[in-house]
Amino acid sequence: MSDAKLQSVLSSLAEVYRQLDSLPSSPVPDAGCVKLNTNENPFALPAAVMQSALAALERQYLYPEDDNISLREAAAASYNLSTDQVIAGNGSSELLSLIYKAFLDPGDRVAMLSPGFAYNRKLALLQGARLLEIKWGESCLLPIHKLLFGPAKEAKFILLANPNNPTGTFVPIADIEGLVAQSDRLIVLDEAYVDFAPDSALRLINRYSNLLVLRTFSKSYAAAGIRVGFGFGHPQVIGRLRNIQNLFNMNVIGHAVGVSILANRAAYDENHRHIKFERERVRVALSQLGFSTTPSHANFLLARVPAGRDGTWWQTSLKRKKILVAVLPDESLEDCIRVSIGTKPQMDGFLAAVDDIIGAEMSRRSAV
Amino acid sequence: MSDAKLQSVLSSLAEVYRQLDSLPSSPVPDAGCVKLNTNENPFALPAAVMQSALAALERQYLYPEDDNISLREAAAASYNLSTDQVIAGNGSSELLSLIYKAFLDPGDRVAMLSPGFAYNRKLALLQGARLLEIKWGESCLLPIHKLLFGPAKEAKFILLANPNNPTGTFVPIADIEGLVAQSDRLIVLDEAYVDFAPDSALRLINRYSNLLVLRTFSKSYAAAGIRVGFGFGHPQVIGRLRNIQNLFNMNVIGHAVGVSILANRAAYDENHRHIKFERERVRVALSQLGFSTTPSHANFLLARVPAGRDGTWWQTSLKRKKILVAVLPDESLEDCIRVSIGTKPQMDGFLAAVDDIIGAEMSRRSAV
Repeated sequence: MSDAKLQSVLSSLAEVYRQLDSLPSSPVPDAGCVKLNTNENPFALPAAVMQSALAALERQYLYPEDDNISLREAAAASYNLSTDQVIAGNGSSELLSLIYKAFLDPGDRVAMLSPGFAYNRKLALLQGARLLEIKWGESCLLPIHKLLFGPAKEAKFILLANPNNPTGTFVPIADIEGLVAQSDRLIVLDEAYVDFAPDSALRLINRYSNLLVLRTFSKSYAAAGIRVGFGFGHPQVIGRLRNIQNLFNMNVIGHAVGVSILANRAAYDENHRHIKFERERVRVALSQLGFSTTPSHANFLLARVPAGRDGTWWQTSLKRKKILVAVLPDESLEDCIRVSIGTKPQMDGFLAAVDDIIGAEMSRRSAV
Repeated sequence: MSDAKLQSVLSSLAEVYRQLDSLPSSPVPDAGCVKLNTNENPFALPAAVMQSALAALERQYLYPEDDNISLREAAAASYNLSTDQVIAGNGSSELLSLIYKAFLDPGDRVAMLSPGFAYNRKLALLQGARLLEIKWGESCLLPIHKLLFGPAKEAKFILLANPNNPTGTFVPIADIEGLVAQSDRLIVLDEAYVDFAPDSALRLINRYSNLLVLRTFSKSYAAAGIRVGFGFGHPQVIGRLRNIQNLFNMNVIGHAVGVSILANRAAYDENHRHIKFERERVRVALSQLGFSTTPSHANFLLARVPAGRDGTWWQTSLKRKKILVAVLPDESLEDCIRVSIGTKPQMDGFLAAVDDIIGAEMSRRSAV
């Protein structure tokens, strides 16, 4: 194989990508572990939703509907919007990528409240853009002044999540409205965890052309593996994003499951009640075990670990017991773990493992 | 709603997209028609593949595997390549979009043999790039000289399909190898229809770092609705493309169906034999009805309609009889229709409809 030829091909890459390395081989997945690290919702689909998926499998040979039309119509009807205010994708992550592609030229800036969804760092890198991380911490007050008059003023768009990930904090919708009303930037509001929270900003879509709300069925509708996400915004913004979306981006199962979940949202009430109940139970138990938790409005808890060890030590110790939790790449969260709220047996297992680890630590210390 | 705010948001769009209009509302799909317009394969999945899909539906709440690792491993094993030579996507259309994104800056050029897959015009537009269409016609000889020394020399990459769409023509792999060996451009070879043809260029992947082969399970494996496609090439090129791919791009059904089809390719032998048999039967019948067809190595026929009417007239006439066929946007193909090869009853229905239309035309003419 001629290396000169490879160099010629690589030199044809677009400017931004010429400097980026090739992706290395993927890590081997952690088989046989209890997954409390990516905020999945470990329950079955409602029977009616499963039936729709099975029926769709029988139409497997036909191309999916163009432009996700039925799914967008169903979402518009469910959320009292018009179809041209809706875009659908393989999870909200596809839609987030589209927003980056649509709005950022190399050298541009994008602002994110921090700590936030760390994947935004990679998305900015891939556009050759700069991610401005606006420090926010675990506050429930939106730093509106910083977003309006600080360096974020130069950003092409501003990213926030409500409830926020990884903190679980929730800000009142009136504060979100205050920001959207005063800013002339596009505000991209990720509501991935909104079904575990008291309120949503979706009603603002008809009032402000600079608000774009992202939703996903991965967290509250137990469909992370199916990849269903939505963006809601002004038809002119949504139309531009649809314009650059891949042809036949979602498959027929994604369409069918999406439409059916929208028609059966009430079937998830018990699921959401369970998760909120467990979230409180685990929070109290963790406090008793020496952790300090941020009040959460999502299906996870951000827990500061007891003094003496950091988050990574706890992650490793729990993994030895076949339980996966997340640590965060933010400096201020080095002594934290993020734990998804799953089934009662999963959470019992998690709490027992934490108890064990603390017990072993205490014996080790008293032995020293 | 403030128009000034909308203008501010739209002015934040990246340079290329600022000039593009918003996508208009989608057309209503043609319900109840026999679809012979997009080269689907109207048969059920093999039972083993269906079983895998059903099993995957039970894991719906878990995020799909990162980086499509099992699917890429399975494809590598099936085609005697290494995993880092494989990328997987929602159909080859996702992979084609990635190639455009990776290689084209605004103002760049890309070359395509013409007539070719018309969607490339949109993909080039979305990158602000120029698509050079190199006239090829219905020849079975590759215009190697034009591609090496003509305007295509300036292209960042060169697109060709073998068998070609919409003509169905097939060029010997030795000719493809001649082009790849002599060019230092990336050659993107779409083998969407290769299972209906006598040979494939996949064996060249290990020899040439400037060849990238695309495959899809939409045409020959009856899975257009599931969205499974592959790209095969040099690890350095594949790694760059994986790097810019969306997080969790495919869903668990796509993974399961893809892996299972790879393990059950032999179960499609009868399917492919049927389609090749029907293709010849319909070709002969169309000739007897006054059409002239290009010899096809794909699951469709390009048919020049009898003198007096053009392709669009035939498309409209057939649609009245609930049969959908394709017309092509190329000037040289205005008097053609492209007809997918489906089941025997579908093709009988198509031929009967054509016969009816000809009969009605003859009565009309003799009545005039």
